[in-house]
Amino acid sequence: MTTTYRLHNYWRSSASWRVRIAFALKGLAYEYVAVNILKDGGEQNRPTFRALNPQTQVPLLEVVTDGASRFLAQSLPILEFLDETRPETTPLLPADPYVRARVRQLAEAVNSGIQPLQNLPILAEVERLGGDKLAWARKWNERGLVALEALAAESAGRFLVGDTPSLADACLLPQLYSARRFSLETAAFPTLERVEAACYALPGLDATRPERQPDAVA
Amino acid sequence: MTTTYRLHNYWRSSASWRVRIAFALKGLAYEYVAVNILKDGGEQNRPTFRALNPQTQVPLLEVVTDGASRFLAQSLPILEFLDETRPETTPLLPADPYVRARVRQLAEAVNSGIQPLQNLPILAEVERLGGDKLAWARKWNERGLVALEALAAESAGRFLVGDTPSLADACLLPQLYSARRFSLETAAFPTLERVEAACYALPGLDATRPERQPDAVA
Repeated sequence: MTTTYRLHNYWRSSASWRVRIAFALKGLAYEYVAVNILKDGGEQNRPTFRALNPQTQVPLLEVVTDGASRFLAQSLPILEFLDETRPETTPLLPADPYVRARVRQLAEAVNSGIQPLQNLPILAEVERLGGDKLAWARKWNERGLVALEALAAESAGRFLVGDTPSLADACLLPQLYSARRFSLETAAFPTLERVEAACYALPGLDATRPERQPDAVA
Repeated sequence: MTTTYRLHNYWRSSASWRVRIAFALKGLAYEYVAVNILKDGGEQNRPTFRALNPQTQVPLLEVVTDGASRFLAQSLPILEFLDETRPETTPLLPADPYVRARVRQLAEAVNSGIQPLQNLPILAEVERLGGDKLAWARKWNERGLVALEALAAESAGRFLVGDTPSLADACLLPQLYSARRFSLETAAFPTLERVEAACYALPGLDATRPERQPDAVA
């Protein structure tokens, strides 16, 4: 039984980037399939894509086993799936159940606590209401990162929880990148910035950055 | 070693309700600790609560082992923790890794795909921008439930994924309740309504409803 992966993703999608980080940490290869979420109303809204992921979002992982494809959306479930099915690779969750739960808590502080509030459709709606979409995005990034910094101050070693990279770190890098795009000053989060630097020092992590992807636009 | 649980929660918080459902499905007891998220700017914003959960949100699970307390926030990590640490109880995740991942995908379609967009602070901000907060909440509930119905149509048996209740079903009940509060007609989601009825027929589930909680207001 041979399994390969195709990652349907977009260079600047933060949830896509989390999956690229997981592949890098695990040393697993995948085929990059670019989905342009901006072009012509977004390729993720086409019927062919919607049939594979009714949420019409990237990332979408295509798991190809002996020629047959299965599809899986949502970044954290994808990371858990890779962890469970590739036990020979670096784990992204620690062994102790309480510490595992804390890793998941920090990951969710980004995944459900920040990212959904600054998604493209939400920012478009804020603009339609006459709001300042950058101020909106900055507000929720700041609130969320203040909480994450406090959580990290309790649990961080070299990484967000202890001394090994985890699901939580895979969420951190894209969120700090997003926060800076929205002109949020991240120096107020010293633990998060320290951990970010430790992550980029790991083998293969630099190549996961948005601007290093094949569909990146200068 | 004796472990007991105290659940810091609020009757109408949908994420709190997910944890009550998990306890009911597993037949585990817990002490109900009411946190009034509306009173005096919200009890979850007090320094004493913030020290336990920097995200200043319910639910917060207090795990008391031999008199010592540890704290855990975020509903899905709490559910995974209960599943991993109480293997003698009904599991909330199936055994097959791909099916587990699909359960988590459906749970996230609610947890990160809908609920964060209709949280109290977000609705307050929409109102500040001059928007209609009910229309806003209805919009994201509808978009999210359309996607969830499509996902469920692929995977549902008696429950959202197959024939046993899971993390995903724990997310479904509170979200349908929220959607109706925002005046969204849920008859357009026949699979979701059918699964909802199957869930309420399970022992102990009716007692998890918001209006059955000690801090409920008529």
